[in-house]
Amino acid sequence: MRNLVSEANKPLSPAQSSPLPPAMTGVASLCSARRVAVFGGTHGNELSGVALVGLWLQDGAEIRRRGLEVRPFMANPRAVQQRTRYIDTDLNRAFTLENLSSAQGEDLPYEVKRAQEINQLFGPMGSPDAYDVIFDLHNTTSNMGCTLILESSDDHFNLQMAHYIKGAVAPVSCSVLLNDHPHLHYSTTRSVAKHPVGLEVGPQPQGVLRSNIFESMRLIMKHALDFIELFNEGMQFPPCAVEVFRVSERVDYPHDSNGNITAMVHPSLQDCDWEPLNPGDPMFQTFDGRSVEYKGDCTVCPTFINEAAYYEKKQAFVVTRKETLTVMGIRVSNTMLSKK
Amino acid sequence: MRNLVSEANKPLSPAQSSPLPPAMTGVASLCSARRVAVFGGTHGNELSGVALVGLWLQDGAEIRRRGLEVRPFMANPRAVQQRTRYIDTDLNRAFTLENLSSAQGEDLPYEVKRAQEINQLFGPMGSPDAYDVIFDLHNTTSNMGCTLILESSDDHFNLQMAHYIKGAVAPVSCSVLLNDHPHLHYSTTRSVAKHPVGLEVGPQPQGVLRSNIFESMRLIMKHALDFIELFNEGMQFPPCAVEVFRVSERVDYPHDSNGNITAMVHPSLQDCDWEPLNPGDPMFQTFDGRSVEYKGDCTVCPTFINEAAYYEKKQAFVVTRKETLTVMGIRVSNTMLSKK
Repeated sequence: MRNLVSEANKPLSPAQSSPLPPAMTGVASLCSARRVAVFGGTHGNELSGVALVGLWLQDGAEIRRRGLEVRPFMANPRAVQQRTRYIDTDLNRAFTLENLSSAQGEDLPYEVKRAQEINQLFGPMGSPDAYDVIFDLHNTTSNMGCTLILESSDDHFNLQMAHYIKGAVAPVSCSVLLNDHPHLHYSTTRSVAKHPVGLEVGPQPQGVLRSNIFESMRLIMKHALDFIELFNEGMQFPPCAVEVFRVSERVDYPHDSNGNITAMVHPSLQDCDWEPLNPGDPMFQTFDGRSVEYKGDCTVCPTFINEAAYYEKKQAFVVTRKETLTVMGIRVSNTMLSKK
Repeated sequence: MRNLVSEANKPLSPAQSSPLPPAMTGVASLCSARRVAVFGGTHGNELSGVALVGLWLQDGAEIRRRGLEVRPFMANPRAVQQRTRYIDTDLNRAFTLENLSSAQGEDLPYEVKRAQEINQLFGPMGSPDAYDVIFDLHNTTSNMGCTLILESSDDHFNLQMAHYIKGAVAPVSCSVLLNDHPHLHYSTTRSVAKHPVGLEVGPQPQGVLRSNIFESMRLIMKHALDFIELFNEGMQFPPCAVEVFRVSERVDYPHDSNGNITAMVHPSLQDCDWEPLNPGDPMFQTFDGRSVEYKGDCTVCPTFINEAAYYEKKQAFVVTRKETLTVMGIRVSNTMLSKK
């Protein structure tokens, strides 16, 4: 876990941190989180984040918190200007070590150059200088509601934040998608930060701004920033349990030999993100009316069902498994408090 | 009205046709409609039509009808390939006389060249050689359900077809949007035909294929082709009344001085296509939570509410007025029947 400090109040450097022991019922002292960024427009046609960041760039009062630097940032301004997902390549897959370390040059794809700039501004990734938290605001065409996307089950700061947000918005649901799969994990824009947080809200078509989705995203961000402020000011968050959906598999649409799709998401699966899909349940409907059933060996919870941007990634939905994580209690280290 | 023939069974040329008298309770004899085209992919990211036309290009059995040539056609294949609305300019606005008559050349926008090709293949527009009917298949992100878009209140063939389809799909609704407004009418791909019919089905995000929308579009096309077959075979369609929504105005989003949107469609208007909007009803919600009210002088019926593609056209919704058209009875002219 990053930023974990010992009970003796000596912050560990990221290099010194190690996996937590199995019984995580204690309280960890963590460094305060002083530098926070809120990214919109990593994908230029996902308009809730574009609009919110645009608003906060004009007037940041709404995201101001005591003792925090909160920086709104338009991640892919050319894509935003063209209202398209990306110009040359998906920015939210571009933060590979290879891209970040490649020589700068005019012939690089726009988003690779942009990734290098973002890494300079908010990183460098993995370094002590990196921003503490980056929230990256996304929309999906899938019926996912509010979803926090986390990248590590060892990041107890983020998991405590998810627990806080879930409590604050209840009975409205805020799901946690955990993508720490060795092959399905991807190199996100937010991964530059010590604590990367994706916020995905849908359903909303690409290129459309819906007030309900906009206000949901705004509310989640309010609670997220409140949590960081409370944590920095010394509030202790006791050990807790958080329900997460862990990514386990991708499922592609059926294709013919020319690569053309031959079936659609089945009406009984469409819009049923997070709901159980059992072996034998229909998942696709072919153009001639036949059902294609799910062949897995256990009940799963699909999400990102029929997301527009994932056709090109050959992905009809993501398979997840629901589990409950035990989360350590956290509090800010006294060292950090005394610096206030 | 085009294709109207006198009771004496002499087809009028389009040039000879004239507006109908006020009392339209008679039965008009019209030329048969032998050549029909079904366009998909006029906008490459509206996937129901792309998928249906792709399917029918492989196997046309489903759209075959006695005595009819029904030609499926991918209108903008480069946009389809790139899953974008258009490459250089909106094909569905490109069929102006200026574009169609401009000299061919490599420097023309792709869609202008394509418009010229389509006019050669299915027109020329306004000529006796033009296709009888073109159906152009579209999707919208708006909650419009199934909508037939017609361009003339004098086209009794199309209005009778709309009446037939509405009856066939009832109790499911199929609305008729009539766009014959002198300034808001635009130069559509389908306008090459004698009887242009737009079929708009939503809500569906751009770049997404939903089975419910796909099957709704397929069903409307089935009934439309059935109607043409029945008409050609001599069925008489008596005078009738058809409810239409006539385009009267466009409403833009509120903007700041930099052209940035400052408000969203109000939650009480979002998804309420075709429903009454009264003077004083909220239509927008600003980012700081204020409502902007509709200032018109009478109750109207908005549609194309929050359509993704219309942000660039500075259009938040289209204002229509509901009215009932009296439609002449029609039958195929005996001249045409005797040619079978």
